Amino acid sequence: MDLELVTVGSELLLGFTLDTNAAEIARALASVGARVTTRTTVGDSEPAIRDAVAGALRRTGLVVVTGGLGPTSDDVTKKAVAGLFDAPLELDQQYLRRLEQRFARLGRGPMPPSNRTQAEFPRGATVLPNRRGTAPALWLDGAPGTAVLLPGVPHEMRALLREELIPRVRSLVEARHETPVTTRWRTLRTTGTTESAIASALADLEAGLAPVTVAYLPGFSGVDLRLMVSGLREPEADAALHRAAERVLPVLDAHYYGEGDTDLAMVVLDQLRARRMRLAVAESCTGGLIGARITAIPGSSEVFAGGVVSYADDSKVRDLEVPGSLLEAHGAVSEPVVRAMMAGAARRFGVEASVAVTGIAGPAGGSEGKPVGTVWLAARAGGRDRAVLRRFPGGREAVRQRSAQAALDLLRRLLSGVRAERR
Amino acid sequence: MDLELVTVGSELLLGFTLDTNAAEIARALASVGARVTTRTTVGDSEPAIRDAVAGALRRTGLVVVTGGLGPTSDDVTKKAVAGLFDAPLELDQQYLRRLEQRFARLGRGPMPPSNRTQAEFPRGATVLPNRRGTAPALWLDGAPGTAVLLPGVPHEMRALLREELIPRVRSLVEARHETPVTTRWRTLRTTGTTESAIASALADLEAGLAPVTVAYLPGFSGVDLRLMVSGLREPEADAALHRAAERVLPVLDAHYYGEGDTDLAMVVLDQLRARRMRLAVAESCTGGLIGARITAIPGSSEVFAGGVVSYADDSKVRDLEVPGSLLEAHGAVSEPVVRAMMAGAARRFGVEASVAVTGIAGPAGGSEGKPVGTVWLAARAGGRDRAVLRRFPGGREAVRQRSAQAALDLLRRLLSGVRAERR
Repeated sequence: MDLELVTVGSELLLGFTLDTNAAEIARALASVGARVTTRTTVGDSEPAIRDAVAGALRRTGLVVVTGGLGPTSDDVTKKAVAGLFDAPLELDQQYLRRLEQRFARLGRGPMPPSNRTQAEFPRGATVLPNRRGTAPALWLDGAPGTAVLLPGVPHEMRALLREELIPRVRSLVEARHETPVTTRWRTLRTTGTTESAIASALADLEAGLAPVTVAYLPGFSGVDLRLMVSGLREPEADAALHRAAERVLPVLDAHYYGEGDTDLAMVVLDQLRARRMRLAVAESCTGGLIGARITAIPGSSEVFAGGVVSYADDSKVRDLEVPGSLLEAHGAVSEPVVRAMMAGAARRFGVEASVAVTGIAGPAGGSEGKPVGTVWLAARAGGRDRAVLRRFPGGREAVRQRSAQAALDLLRRLLSGVRAERR
Repeated sequence: MDLELVTVGSELLLGFTLDTNAAEIARALASVGARVTTRTTVGDSEPAIRDAVAGALRRTGLVVVTGGLGPTSDDVTKKAVAGLFDAPLELDQQYLRRLEQRFARLGRGPMPPSNRTQAEFPRGATVLPNRRGTAPALWLDGAPGTAVLLPGVPHEMRALLREELIPRVRSLVEARHETPVTTRWRTLRTTGTTESAIASALADLEAGLAPVTVAYLPGFSGVDLRLMVSGLREPEADAALHRAAERVLPVLDAHYYGEGDTDLAMVVLDQLRARRMRLAVAESCTGGLIGARITAIPGSSEVFAGGVVSYADDSKVRDLEVPGSLLEAHGAVSEPVVRAMMAGAARRFGVEASVAVTGIAGPAGGSEGKPVGTVWLAARAGGRDRAVLRRFPGGREAVRQRSAQAALDLLRRLLSGVRAERR
């Protein structure tokens, strides 16, 4: 089933706000077999909204509109759509009382008169209550087709999308088709390899994965692969994705570390927890990023003891017991120093596992032999250890993010008993 | 001058990719007086692109299209627009040779045949070369109006936008109007206060700022205020913004810390550098976030000595010399402990300035007296120090981000000789 999306707001149109609502609505609709074919963004202008909604209804007969349902004078979505459906706005006394009670309950004093307009609805519209805000969603059926209006505040929109819109669209899809079709996807996360290396490894396989398609999504944390399938019923779609993943995963091999939103820090924490090991970090060029990644995970305190950010060289000597002679002989960005940092962190915190990073994030500090992006990483776990040299591309932020990810990955591979890759 | 934007790509439409290109183009165009009135997003479908571009041209006569200029079979933007302008695609021999030379130069072997299509252009189109990729921008004038095609790869789009599109649109605006009007804005950043506190402080002032409008943009790092003005000539617009800022800044008072993209860590580093002080950090619940924020700034190594992430209590005792008796008597999240952490970090790193954070980020670990979000912060600089207790709202990530920002802000206020706010 096809439909269109109209998002309303001058902030969106001017480019100050990214249209995350539209992206979220499209993904949710695709999962129940409703395909967004065009998305239109207009400002807070009644004629522009009316034109956009009318065009969408002409093309597909079904439109989801978000934004412009607030109490201020520039919120004109209801008026524009009411005009199109020839359904005048009428005050809903029952809803007005609910609004007034809401204000009283939240102790915000009497309701401002401007909020009265939020109890006005196009005649015949179904009101879908919004427990998180004052603007309900509205569902209109009429001669031009079906229009659904959602508030633009993201958490209110999200709740109404999940609780009201998706179940209703699912029923609509089921009512129209004998076999409701859907778009489903799985994201396989890899790190320590490149997009082109994965693409050539998958080259012979890719055509055979049909109807599943593969998208490559490279970023600082590695390359994500999105397997996607459209136009099948839900169980068939999931089975096709399962078959495709079974064929792709062996090719990704040890580069694969998880699915969906899984953060590598989470994977490493789980590995350590299972082995009853505790972790310490020694960070130089990453300056705290690895610790921040790890402690972002709830429950990390069970595993994570702490770390030293040894940004200055004297801290490497004092706090991590790196011999000054090593720093003098090899420089701070070297294998002997990163190994000494790794050992020093484990010793200081009295733990079995540690990682260390020292490198040149730039923009200054590079030399011919050690250009910006040169990073030494080391990891130790349960008596085994490993150090690797990397040359990361990109600016300061890229080098730092890639370094943090590579340090966590080195530890992951060590813990899985898999050799670290030297590229 | 009004125009429309059409962005092409099934990834955008499905909601996997956020339309950052559209936002960037709209902001850049507004700054030279060209107003995007509608934005349409369609998939990689020739009829859908043609309909969207035709509609845009009908309404405004000028359209910027981005995406769908690559070498693969689903890149159909040129074909769709060429059809609309009745300008058949023709092979540009000269551009073809340039493409082939590019492949040879980058050592990528012979050019794949599919890339030949990238040297085909609608008859009469102006080709605006793309030094960063294979798809040039195209400028078409014809009966339906003017269409500009930009590649969708963000860094290629950005360069062509800045180097080619903006100067040309500026000339167009100047050619059409005697007094080119523009949209200009300034963002004033505050922290340590709330949106409603600022709004009531500005209540009496706001109407008097016209034609400048104020938008409140709250986030984990504080509340940004965007002052914006439209419809004036550039010098008048800048003067109006200047006058508005002069009136708003005294109200924001010490909560204001910078403009635009300025990070608070940058401000604090500048303050310390000016006072020839060096900085160390002691982090518990932030786990490295403060160090990561500081070291994200190029040149921070001049000022930042390093830090201790004392996630476990025994690290607070061993690495920061927090007396065990204080931990036992008051708990890790307490004023005596945060002060001891602050002093311990300064002592260990031998520096004049330090900050310390200890708190309960959740989801677990809260109690009746110290619920999730309870955070003690301390800062010291040049013999002065201060500790504050905060109760931050939100989940783990919110509490951690707000804590890091509040710690930096405590140090900033101390360094400016301004009292820290207790809310």
